[in-house]
Amino acid sequence: MPASYAYLGPEGTFTEVALRTLPEAATRELIPYVSVQSALDAVRTGEAEAAFVPIENSVEGGITATLDELVAGEPLMIYREVLLSITFALLVRPGTALSDIKTVTAHPAAQPQVRNWLRANLPDATWESAASNADGARLVQEGRYDAAFAGEFAAARYGLEPLEIGIHDAENAQTRFVLVGRPARPAAPTGADKTSVVLWQRDDHPGGLRDLLGEFATRGINLMLLQSRPTGAGIGNYCFCIDAEGHISDRRVAEALTGLKRICLQVRFLGSYPRADVKPGDVEPLLPGTSDDEFAAAADWVARCQDGRF
Amino acid sequence: MPASYAYLGPEGTFTEVALRTLPEAATRELIPYVSVQSALDAVRTGEAEAAFVPIENSVEGGITATLDELVAGEPLMIYREVLLSITFALLVRPGTALSDIKTVTAHPAAQPQVRNWLRANLPDATWESAASNADGARLVQEGRYDAAFAGEFAAARYGLEPLEIGIHDAENAQTRFVLVGRPARPAAPTGADKTSVVLWQRDDHPGGLRDLLGEFATRGINLMLLQSRPTGAGIGNYCFCIDAEGHISDRRVAEALTGLKRICLQVRFLGSYPRADVKPGDVEPLLPGTSDDEFAAAADWVARCQDGRF
Amino acid sequence: MPASYAYLGPEGTFTEVALRTLPEAATRELIPYVSVQSALDAVRTGEAEAAFVPIENSVEGGITATLDELVAGEPLMIYREVLLSITFALLVRPGTALSDIKTVTAHPAAQPQVRNWLRANLPDATWESAASNADGARLVQEGRYDAAFAGEFAAARYGLEPLEIGIHDAENAQTRFVLVGRPARPAAPTGADKTSVVLWQRDDHPGGLRDLLGEFATRGINLMLLQSRPTGAGIGNYCFCIDAEGHISDRRVAEALTGLKRICLQVRFLGSYPRADVKPGDVEPLLPGTSDDEFAAAADWVARCQDGRF
Amino acid sequence: MPASYAYLGPEGTFTEVALRTLPEAATRELIPYVSVQSALDAVRTGEAEAAFVPIENSVEGGITATLDELVAGEPLMIYREVLLSITFALLVRPGTALSDIKTVTAHPAAQPQVRNWLRANLPDATWESAASNADGARLVQEGRYDAAFAGEFAAARYGLEPLEIGIHDAENAQTRFVLVGRPARPAAPTGADKTSVVLWQRDDHPGGLRDLLGEFATRGINLMLLQSRPTGAGIGNYCFCIDAEGHISDRRVAEALTGLKRICLQVRFLGSYPRADVKPGDVEPLLPGTSDDEFAAAADWVARCQDGRF
Repeated sequence: MPASYAYLGPEGTFTEVALRTLPEAATRELIPYVSVQSALDAVRTGEAEAAFVPIENSVEGGITATLDELVAGEPLMIYREVLLSITFALLVRPGTALSDIKTVTAHPAAQPQVRNWLRANLPDATWESAASNADGARLVQEGRYDAAFAGEFAAARYGLEPLEIGIHDAENAQTRFVLVGRPARPAAPTGADKTSVVLWQRDDHPGGLRDLLGEFATRGINLMLLQSRPTGAGIGNYCFCIDAEGHISDRRVAEALTGLKRICLQVRFLGSYPRADVKPGDVEPLLPGTSDDEFAAAADWVARCQDGRF
Repeated sequence: MPASYAYLGPEGTFTEVALRTLPEAATRELIPYVSVQSALDAVRTGEAEAAFVPIENSVEGGITATLDELVAGEPLMIYREVLLSITFALLVRPGTALSDIKTVTAHPAAQPQVRNWLRANLPDATWESAASNADGARLVQEGRYDAAFAGEFAAARYGLEPLEIGIHDAENAQTRFVLVGRPARPAAPTGADKTSVVLWQRDDHPGGLRDLLGEFATRGINLMLLQSRPTGAGIGNYCFCIDAEGHISDRRVAEALTGLKRICLQVRFLGSYPRADVKPGDVEPLLPGTSDDEFAAAADWVARCQDGRF
Repeated sequence: MPASYAYLGPEGTFTEVALRTLPEAATRELIPYVSVQSALDAVRTGEAEAAFVPIENSVEGGITATLDELVAGEPLMIYREVLLSITFALLVRPGTALSDIKTVTAHPAAQPQVRNWLRANLPDATWESAASNADGARLVQEGRYDAAFAGEFAAARYGLEPLEIGIHDAENAQTRFVLVGRPARPAAPTGADKTSVVLWQRDDHPGGLRDLLGEFATRGINLMLLQSRPTGAGIGNYCFCIDAEGHISDRRVAEALTGLKRICLQVRFLGSYPRADVKPGDVEPLLPGTSDDEFAAAADWVARCQDGRF
Repeated sequence: MPASYAYLGPEGTFTEVALRTLPEAATRELIPYVSVQSALDAVRTGEAEAAFVPIENSVEGGITATLDELVAGEPLMIYREVLLSITFALLVRPGTALSDIKTVTAHPAAQPQVRNWLRANLPDATWESAASNADGARLVQEGRYDAAFAGEFAAARYGLEPLEIGIHDAENAQTRFVLVGRPARPAAPTGADKTSVVLWQRDDHPGGLRDLLGEFATRGINLMLLQSRPTGAGIGNYCFCIDAEGHISDRRVAEALTGLKRICLQVRFLGSYPRADVKPGDVEPLLPGTSDDEFAAAADWVARCQDGRF
């Protein structure tokens, strides 16, 4: 398998910074791709071992381009997640003052995160969208715009200076990235894991979605993401991308997935992997009756009843 | 193991008639006992191979003496059930006319089933309770009372005549009897089976009982009996005797019991056995997603996901 | 309306003692009846203003004679409940020693409550059933039996002496009695109330009973009794007698009953009345979102939305 | 109130076409705005009577820009919806042949809907994003690109010709638009209505979202859209935009909203309005027990119980 990771480029973006926080990234060639689709296609074709792409952020919610790629096509699996706090620096050519700035640029996704700052500090500046935050910085370097919102780490690469750092409208602005590969055995459970699945309902009736969620709820499994995505069969037809606490090797999760598989039209397993937001020791305690030991003891009891030994 | 069946006596009652409908009764010695408790104790001590006792009737509901014996003490298991339609004959000494009858007798349990008939036909007769219907017939034979309500089959034994037959206030008056033995492997599933359990809640909170029943409901399992019985821990403290459709070797039933075992304080398995009310071919179809095949396919899919092969 | 209360007689039983704990009993004529049915019929015919009967005890559970009378026939309503701790005295003629006792008597309902005591203290005594505990005492007075289990209060009436008091097998042995009248406006809520209803399911399907219980659970209403009773339509056909926390004038209870009325075949309201087991100040706190104020605020908000004022 | 409707411009897009299907649009001045936000702000400031914007499409799902504007800020209400089938024409300057096309343009949202067609018919053409489909057509008119994907209706306005029509990757490609105004009394129910709300959970626990959905399910209300949107409080914090069948003046909907209001941290009512996908006569029948009449009868019964008249 090629020792390379595809990632959503270009170089010098938050995605690359997030990717480099993974120890395994140090031993791979990191190759930027122009889109989430092309990065994931590189995995599907075997061109890359894995792809690293954003999947959720605290301003936009689930990133639909990524979810739609995972929902359809050849199955892929998530192996790791990374959370990165997103704050912007305002990058300018050396010598530029705040009062000199007439035009600002960045990727459109940055706009909702700097809107308030702009209104307060540069109310008259004109916004111009760039293909990426890194590309915006390059355009400032070239003199096309006066300032770019980008990660502070991008300044050096483009010969710019941060005029202001730590810009973010929303507290706790974060983006979640995932490392995606071809299906294989999931990473071993750590005690603080997350499982991602996609669910398609068998039919649409009152209580249908409630019953799907009940498969998690009755086993004490908390949900961390529920994002509906159109199935392509017309308005109102959705599948559901769900992130749930726990690992598929946890019995409560395995049994919930078994239940979903029975009652759903289709279930796609997208992986079980360590949570980036909490350490194993800090996970909320399980509800009574939902631990592996309790599942095992109960299954053992049923087996003994089936044999008449109790 | 002794080749004898204990049954709730005396001889000549509906219980004996019901017991004799079981083919295996023909090859056992049938021994009457004075109470449900003593019949079941004979099984517990090994004095009898099994005991045959009433457990539910369409007028009184669950028969609490039997349920309470099954709920507590050494575990026992139900292996068979028999349904018997209950209609009474009015037994008299030869030559007695309706207008001669001043006193009538029977077991108190017969009273609600003949009350309307009595009001219409013998409004002035005095009711005297007997220890059993058979005993009532004996007392008529001895001349102590004028007439006894009992099964028509009891007439010959006591030298009486049925003055009237087919007496029953409620349409569909039936009693359900069970054959109870020490725990062993349940009878093989027939396709029309019933599973009996006793559930004790972990604690009492809004929704507690609903959640227990949800373990059956979410797997498409219909309930046939829900009878609360006091736990002995004071007013308002109940356990629940439940009869559910299906056999413990059916995956939907096994999984429901596993779930109950996890979330209940205690579960007692009382057996899986063929239903007497319906033949295998006439059982209602399963809800989608609840067949053994669907359970097996779903579990297999989860196992493959755990291995990354899908 | 006649100023008399019917009660399950005879005089000198636990029922009379419980009835006399009600202040209003002091101003009524208290008339014993030979059965629950006759006491309740006295209310239905207008012969009595109300009837006082046992409805639940910690050994037998729901008392089916009473429940069946309330479930069927002309509607009646419960206005009060009384809890009485049940302990027995062993009553004998003066001069009788424990070693003299060969026969003991009491109402059959007393038997499970004294069985262990008998086994330990009078293993060889013969049990003879009496029509009531008071009647058993009378038979001892007459010399027919040697000793009677009854309330200590019955000793004086029958010229007997308590040889032993405080006999009870189960800890917390209690019986619950109710004062039943014709339908009228329920007593005002006290903050610690109970509501009794009878539910008939529309049809029998997996999840049917769970959904009925869900009407209580989703509004944070705890259940205190769930007793199935046969509907008379044959084995397996049950209605459910339910005691729930709260008063019908509490919005959470009113809304739950509205929901049940919609989805059930039939609902019979048996009354809302003060709880005997807990004082208003000691009731468990309501779950969030289930207080009258929260219901009112929510309904008000919906009304404003319907008008476009929000 | 000003007789103007704001809409997401520019002129000549699908939005304008959809808006003109509303009879009331004929009597208003229709004013294009550069963004959903600015169109909705025009309503909030009173500059426009209402705004017409896309809210859901069969390829992208819920349109987050619109949802996010409705979720936050001054409350607005939806009064009408329009469904428009979306198929694209490939617009070129007169005389251009398919083989002449090197560059194509359109709004990025069009891309997933024409991707397959492009791959099959113009595999080597370069895609350039335009600010809107109309703007793309203008740029083709100006000679900057060779062809634009846009509605066929846009050809005349820009002096272009449709080289191909009816292009759409997905069957049933539709976009749903809504007419949004300031809060006022909703339109009267038609028998085929939809209600939109936004829900914020009180806290996050296993079963939390299931319980919210249960308020709809237990009243037989089907859901048509469930779109999570970040609350701005960090990754994993979502509110839920829900479209449900029925009108807030339907009792089942009013009661569901009352329940949600009680158990949610916050509920925002976004309106009840006629469904565009089905006529009143073709709506699925209600589940038993969920009609207005049944709600009214049940509420009336509870009121009578509260008074003791039943």
